[in-house]
Amino acid sequence: MSTHTMPSADIVFDTLFAYQRSAALGSAIDLDVFTAIDGGARTGREIADRCGAPERAIRILCDYLSTIGLLRKSDGRYELVPESATFLSKRSPAYLGTTARFLLTHELKQNFERLTDAIRQGGVPPDAHNTVAEENPIWIEFARSMMPMMVPAAHGIADLVAESSSGALRVLDIAASHGVFGITIAQRNPRAEIVAVDWAPVLEVARENARGAKVEDRYRTLAGDAFTVDFGDGYGVALVTNFLHHFDPPTCTEFLRKIHRALKPGGRVVELEFVPNPDRISPPVPARFPLTMLAGTPGGDAYTFDELRRQLEDAGFKDVSSHALPTPQTIVIAQKP
Amino acid sequence: MSTHTMPSADIVFDTLFAYQRSAALGSAIDLDVFTAIDGGARTGREIADRCGAPERAIRILCDYLSTIGLLRKSDGRYELVPESATFLSKRSPAYLGTTARFLLTHELKQNFERLTDAIRQGGVPPDAHNTVAEENPIWIEFARSMMPMMVPAAHGIADLVAESSSGALRVLDIAASHGVFGITIAQRNPRAEIVAVDWAPVLEVARENARGAKVEDRYRTLAGDAFTVDFGDGYGVALVTNFLHHFDPPTCTEFLRKIHRALKPGGRVVELEFVPNPDRISPPVPARFPLTMLAGTPGGDAYTFDELRRQLEDAGFKDVSSHALPTPQTIVIAQKP
Repeated sequence: MSTHTMPSADIVFDTLFAYQRSAALGSAIDLDVFTAIDGGARTGREIADRCGAPERAIRILCDYLSTIGLLRKSDGRYELVPESATFLSKRSPAYLGTTARFLLTHELKQNFERLTDAIRQGGVPPDAHNTVAEENPIWIEFARSMMPMMVPAAHGIADLVAESSSGALRVLDIAASHGVFGITIAQRNPRAEIVAVDWAPVLEVARENARGAKVEDRYRTLAGDAFTVDFGDGYGVALVTNFLHHFDPPTCTEFLRKIHRALKPGGRVVELEFVPNPDRISPPVPARFPLTMLAGTPGGDAYTFDELRRQLEDAGFKDVSSHALPTPQTIVIAQKP
Repeated sequence: MSTHTMPSADIVFDTLFAYQRSAALGSAIDLDVFTAIDGGARTGREIADRCGAPERAIRILCDYLSTIGLLRKSDGRYELVPESATFLSKRSPAYLGTTARFLLTHELKQNFERLTDAIRQGGVPPDAHNTVAEENPIWIEFARSMMPMMVPAAHGIADLVAESSSGALRVLDIAASHGVFGITIAQRNPRAEIVAVDWAPVLEVARENARGAKVEDRYRTLAGDAFTVDFGDGYGVALVTNFLHHFDPPTCTEFLRKIHRALKPGGRVVELEFVPNPDRISPPVPARFPLTMLAGTPGGDAYTFDELRRQLEDAGFKDVSSHALPTPQTIVIAQKP
């Protein structure tokens, strides 16, 4: 066997060992390595002293982080790169470490330990423990952890919705979670009233955030399963953010019909979604997202813009438009005629 | 907070979710997706039929593999890339799927679930369950799984050792595992005799491979702990492959002294190691390897060439030289004066 004419196996082993990248980042967040460097520690010894770990271990961790682009090393001194300075140092207002730690919890990762079974079965059975199971407590932690990551999208939605409806506006915020989408609209439009739907314990997090944002007098909650609870009607805007990707297309369309009934004529539905291109392999973040749904839900997926439009039109909406964000997600808006 | 002047958080999330790459590759090997494509399946439907899984699930998996460079997709049809054709299709003589699957076993990955603790403690305590613990059964599976990956290095060692010693040659193969290093020398030099050292159940795998290579009449085994077993003496070559990185530098030097005593004057010690550059962050594979040792051993590491030379010279060796391989490892040879 001639080995010299073969391609390099680097990509195979890099992929096999990719789980170590996740673990290294998780440990660096646990030990607050990035904040230590941001605070002036540069050598392995200095970082080790601030993080309370032996120098050899910190040197190995920081070297590893340098090989994957989260630190820069020269002459034995470590520096932050712009991305780690912005998102991984607690000194940064855009710190995402709490979100990141949540995304690495065993509960979320363990679905991937059974990925082969999920693929053979085409997903996780509805009666099994799964991410969309009723009142899964992970959604409380999700609400507390994911808000920082959703702030840019919340501003994007408010830009599109609140400013064009400066008068009285009733907003239905479905699967409100942390509540940031509705709350941001309420902050922009002093005549907006929000009705937030989610499981009862999750709504406590949303209410807490509404109080923090001083919009609690215009913030109502509606506890229960979004598929069965009575939304009421006459809404000007319905937000359905990070929700549809958990379900198969017929379920999405049926759910959009329920939203359609709750809106007043001229009312708008606003989706926040991972929207891959028609090739389904670009851009990378939306294109990779379906694997998480395959591993954790009975029939979830990421839908292309054409697929989302078809769901919306089948449910009775018109004028479907998409709006890019600085994050990897897309806002899709449609109107009830 | 202006989000538009910020760097992209892509590298942060790509790193967080990197564990999904490992899982996707593991499932694709389990389901034999690459062999199905190599056998002519091109569409999601065709691949799904060969792999016995629903089309939607296979489409999601193959799209994901396309986003990470292990497949190529165009017009809805999937193709292998050179790396997946060579290393991941069972039709290829260089198939590494068995090795890959072993490297993704829970036993090996679970060390990384406790990485933060290992960093705080500077490694895994010697009395805890760890990779170098006595007679860890993982080494039997290792021996069976890792041989294909070590064939190129075995030929590299034989090129350097067997041809320059065509006469009688006694070879001590320490931590022989699958035995491929000693066996390859025995195949090249009909007067070479191998003494393989490892735990008794692992040596059964090596003996089986020696029989398969028809060198069993020149193959002896010595069962036990390499640190305490009596090697005997008068060897012309001692192989210490993928071994020293499990231990701290004083332990390595002390162990090399034991090898020195077992060699005859003029005899050579041959190390196979991950050898990073002095910057310790390049090339990537050797530079990343120490994290695995931090997660799984009390004091292991990857040593630079200067560090390996110092260990060898401190143990009494001279003429230390290094030899590149087509794989990410390096051969280091030194002589007993």
